[in-house]
Amino acid sequence: MPEVPARGFERSEFETRLTKAQALMAQHGFDGILLLSEPEVRYFSGFQTLFWQSPTRPWFLYLPRSGEPVAVIPGIGADLMGRTWVRDIRTWDAPNPDDDGISLLHDLLGPLNASRQTLGILKGHETGLRMPLGDYERLMAGLPDIRVKDATSLIRQLRMVKSEAEIAKLAHICAIGSDTFDTVPEFAREGTPLEDVFRAFRRSALSIGADDVPYLVGGAEQRGYHDVISPPSRRPLQTGDVLMLDTGATFDGYFCDFDRNFAIGRADDASRHAYDVLWRATEAGLNVARPGTTCRELFHAMRAVIAELDDQDANVGRLGHGLGMQLTEWPSHAEFDDTALQEGMVITLEPSLSYGDGRTMVHEENLVIQDGAPRLLSRRAAPELPVI
Amino acid sequence: MPEVPARGFERSEFETRLTKAQALMAQHGFDGILLLSEPEVRYFSGFQTLFWQSPTRPWFLYLPRSGEPVAVIPGIGADLMGRTWVRDIRTWDAPNPDDDGISLLHDLLGPLNASRQTLGILKGHETGLRMPLGDYERLMAGLPDIRVKDATSLIRQLRMVKSEAEIAKLAHICAIGSDTFDTVPEFAREGTPLEDVFRAFRRSALSIGADDVPYLVGGAEQRGYHDVISPPSRRPLQTGDVLMLDTGATFDGYFCDFDRNFAIGRADDASRHAYDVLWRATEAGLNVARPGTTCRELFHAMRAVIAELDDQDANVGRLGHGLGMQLTEWPSHAEFDDTALQEGMVITLEPSLSYGDGRTMVHEENLVIQDGAPRLLSRRAAPELPVI
Repeated sequence: MPEVPARGFERSEFETRLTKAQALMAQHGFDGILLLSEPEVRYFSGFQTLFWQSPTRPWFLYLPRSGEPVAVIPGIGADLMGRTWVRDIRTWDAPNPDDDGISLLHDLLGPLNASRQTLGILKGHETGLRMPLGDYERLMAGLPDIRVKDATSLIRQLRMVKSEAEIAKLAHICAIGSDTFDTVPEFAREGTPLEDVFRAFRRSALSIGADDVPYLVGGAEQRGYHDVISPPSRRPLQTGDVLMLDTGATFDGYFCDFDRNFAIGRADDASRHAYDVLWRATEAGLNVARPGTTCRELFHAMRAVIAELDDQDANVGRLGHGLGMQLTEWPSHAEFDDTALQEGMVITLEPSLSYGDGRTMVHEENLVIQDGAPRLLSRRAAPELPVI
Repeated sequence: MPEVPARGFERSEFETRLTKAQALMAQHGFDGILLLSEPEVRYFSGFQTLFWQSPTRPWFLYLPRSGEPVAVIPGIGADLMGRTWVRDIRTWDAPNPDDDGISLLHDLLGPLNASRQTLGILKGHETGLRMPLGDYERLMAGLPDIRVKDATSLIRQLRMVKSEAEIAKLAHICAIGSDTFDTVPEFAREGTPLEDVFRAFRRSALSIGADDVPYLVGGAEQRGYHDVISPPSRRPLQTGDVLMLDTGATFDGYFCDFDRNFAIGRADDASRHAYDVLWRATEAGLNVARPGTTCRELFHAMRAVIAELDDQDANVGRLGHGLGMQLTEWPSHAEFDDTALQEGMVITLEPSLSYGDGRTMVHEENLVIQDGAPRLLSRRAAPELPVI
């Protein structure tokens, strides 16, 4: 295990992010951007807390066209926000259903309204509105002259390309993920309930250095699993099962996201074949994952191999995605996504297929796009289905 | 540890929830309700997966005024939704930024639009819009004659009162939480970095039977901590620290949410006093937490004790809240909330105060409202600040 990366970021990292955002804002005609969601608030401020899991309170970070960000947050977050680089912190005693930040936002955004300027809000793909819709409508009704414009594409453009410091965190958690998968044969034995395999996996990841394992799904069934998003059952592992575990573990707020397959006791031919196809589909992806390749091309490179066994569209809709502060981020390796890969993008390759009688199989690796061949962050899966 | 409750719910539980919802819909003039958020979709369908952590895909469950629910979901969820009681499952190949369920929803809601009926959406306090705002606006623009009405109060009314089966799960995870706090003296020693205390806590909770520990915050500083929502630092515990850990662990999708304080080596007088005040504030809350008491009354009963030491409003804004499928749920023990407690409500009592030079302290217990004195689900904190 290499040295543990420092937590947090240098102030210069946030200054760079803001400078880039403001250059894009000038270019695309945004006079300000109001951010409401955890990854975006964290990206520009460094504010990191699990408290977002409480749905009770909204949190806001405003990026002006020039100058520094403004935090509009519940008082309970003042101390923690005060330890970030953000200096303009405006708080209210939340929760307050009658005015959960609305009048503070109204004051902040009043000048934009007065001069009929353009406010960016995330309204696009893979976003949501993390405040009550009723409050949003009320806020905007009070600012009738503001022009609201979708800022998803601008934010996406910034967040998709990771800095060296971000890549160091991602590399670290991916290494922890790989080490954790290496321990699976120690606890995934015939007779062990799948639920206990999950708990043992989480404990192992924590021992190895993960901060948390927020995402862990998988399945185990005779001769192949049927579903890839289930919580675990009490069913004990049996000889002849194919076990899949897919994890998103975190270090300092950055995710790994990859899975591994294991056969318990013995592997059936169909599952071995499916595994081989997916391994080679990943290889095909790795061979074209270069700066300038589009996500659509990456998708087709993998699909071409998958088609050997499964010429139907898998219903997952894509074969990989971006990775960072969220388990899944833009872009998508899919027919619809013509994003060109760039150096510094961290992505998953996630080919999947259906085989046999409704069985499904998934594979996944995590990598950084760089000049030349990509750098794998996950340790490459074994070329043949491992048997425990 | 009592017997582990069964996972999931009987079909009759979902039928009861739907029947109650439809009775309220008739009473309050809703012709259908469209649900988008994880707890609500799970509440009415039983669909449970960590896959919601991926922000890429929206998920929808529609409750008609009569008849059964309709799921409109990404294809990747079809297998898992097919194992719930929901029979009408409509899927699309997601992600598809051009049409992520929108045309399916348009077809589903067309009849409401044609007859100018009323559609419920969660727009109120403690809710968010878990789909792209742009898609929501596009959907509604295509259904111009539908009357959209906030359904928050209706859903809140149902979810706040827990069934016996829900209470069994909550009691189980609270018992696991209590057992986990009992193990803290084993790993919270002078010289141990706080980050490692957090990992050990998570590992301990998993060993004892938690499915996961999605929420763990806390602090440790000399003679009292200053912040209650931070992630852990690398700073080693020192004699004279007050350590606080606040956890939301889960079993079968239900949370505990309580904290415990510990003095490392020795306790200073001010912290011992603050602890005593908060312990008695909780006691005052327990003494009035009866069916018919309002959350405002509960708030004032605790504030009256807290005022012995801290007559300023703490900036947390409330002194406890509901608990269930989310770490924090309606109602709020706060000045603004006049919800009357009812049998079957599961709540936290969470008095907090400021003392000394900007230090803060929190206490928390979890309980069920019932006829007579409430039933504690967390084991009552020690009456004096425990010293490790």
